[in-house]
Amino acid sequence: MRYNRIYLADIFDFLNSLDDSSADLVIADPPYNMAKADWDKYQSEKEYFNFMFQWIDALLPKCKTTASLYFFNNAYNSAILLYHLRQRELILRNWITWYKKDGFSSTRKRYVNTQETILFYTMSDKYTFNFDDVRIPYISTERMVHAAKKGLLKNGKRWFPNEKGKLCNDVWEIASQRHKVKVDGKVQKPPHPTIKPDEMIERMICASSNEGDLVLDLFSGSGTTSKIAKNTNRQFIGCEANEEYIRILTNNGLTYDKL
Amino acid sequence: MRYNRIYLADIFDFLNSLDDSSADLVIADPPYNMAKADWDKYQSEKEYFNFMFQWIDALLPKCKTTASLYFFNNAYNSAILLYHLRQRELILRNWITWYKKDGFSSTRKRYVNTQETILFYTMSDKYTFNFDDVRIPYISTERMVHAAKKGLLKNGKRWFPNEKGKLCNDVWEIASQRHKVKVDGKVQKPPHPTIKPDEMIERMICASSNEGDLVLDLFSGSGTTSKIAKNTNRQFIGCEANEEYIRILTNNGLTYDKL
Repeated sequence: MRYNRIYLADIFDFLNSLDDSSADLVIADPPYNMAKADWDKYQSEKEYFNFMFQWIDALLPKCKTTASLYFFNNAYNSAILLYHLRQRELILRNWITWYKKDGFSSTRKRYVNTQETILFYTMSDKYTFNFDDVRIPYISTERMVHAAKKGLLKNGKRWFPNEKGKLCNDVWEIASQRHKVKVDGKVQKPPHPTIKPDEMIERMICASSNEGDLVLDLFSGSGTTSKIAKNTNRQFIGCEANEEYIRILTNNGLTYDKL
Repeated sequence: MRYNRIYLADIFDFLNSLDDSSADLVIADPPYNMAKADWDKYQSEKEYFNFMFQWIDALLPKCKTTASLYFFNNAYNSAILLYHLRQRELILRNWITWYKKDGFSSTRKRYVNTQETILFYTMSDKYTFNFDDVRIPYISTERMVHAAKKGLLKNGKRWFPNEKGKLCNDVWEIASQRHKVKVDGKVQKPPHPTIKPDEMIERMICASSNEGDLVLDLFSGSGTTSKIAKNTNRQFIGCEANEEYIRILTNNGLTYDKL
């Protein structure tokens, strides 16, 4: 298979064609079984999880022993996945909460849902984690301006904040992509219904891979992961089964191919 | 059993003594199996979950069919619990993420943990949810000041913000209790290692119970839940196995008793 392109293919055909032990990083944004689109509909929860476990089982041999994996889903499905993946060789590093903030719902019988989940796994204890490349701003900037000049007393030692910001935490406050793209102040219907924000994907790629590494972009959709991988000098290979997203891919400067 | 007191008792003795179908609301803050204290140590994960499922099975008959239940834990344990509780009659309403923000850790091999989880269940589709009593402030206050005067155009209609704030969402940005109590600017060691913030418990009680309802405070610790239940005119009954927290309870103005 050729790298740096997205294959218009069924996920199983694609994974079966891929070399074993080739991926350094996997970013998978599968259907959530929430009927967001035709490709997100399943007969039953059982059928959905059968599909999920099948592609994950096909995926694991394709990962290097040093690989990292990120799986998007809602919290409920992520809990079920976490339970089952305990039986596999994967090691859970973080339950990441994507805190979208701008979720809108008029439900009055429960708290309004404003989160999605990202399960972050590694294949072994040997893996890339560039903590210094994904620092985030300190919260109390006024206090930090003072600290940068004079330092803060912590446990008897004078502490200075890191110029790049603080260590990245496991709750990610990032607005939905659909709320970022506004025309005349109005939220636009995005070209893909579950498009992920660039900065979120960039964080995963920068933390969990190095330049030249191979990023596997499963369920590519409009190709956000492949686009960012390309922009950050990683190699990539993507898979998308739905032909209607190919136009967006090519608008994103990406090449597609058939198996 | 007498209400409005905390029993110094083993959780199973306590639950067995309680009348069936008596609780309107359960707030349970059990050990997390993270070795935070002697009472938080288990031989194995299996032993821990056996304990968890046993007390939950003893608890369920004590709840009214209209009851709500909140279970604290870390995300990993909550996922395992969620998986198993699918077999019970409980209905999951929210996976609530408590976003502590001020978590501190110098880990450099994963994202810094800044969250805990609260699983929110109800016993049936008939339950109390006072959405109007737990509204939270709107985020963009400047825009909201304008909206309060002139309204905002939403889908062709003029929309005015609710004076009490917006509907409460499922990611709760509340600082840890230990970061709220400072003396001379320094974080103090709290009287109980895993004490929960008052405003978080108050939100649960106000949303999921009415005045006069019975709140069950399991693993009472320093008695935060019972204290808030008392202050909000709910009835309460608590259970704590550890005698060393009794002094804090009485400092909180609470009465304790033995079975």
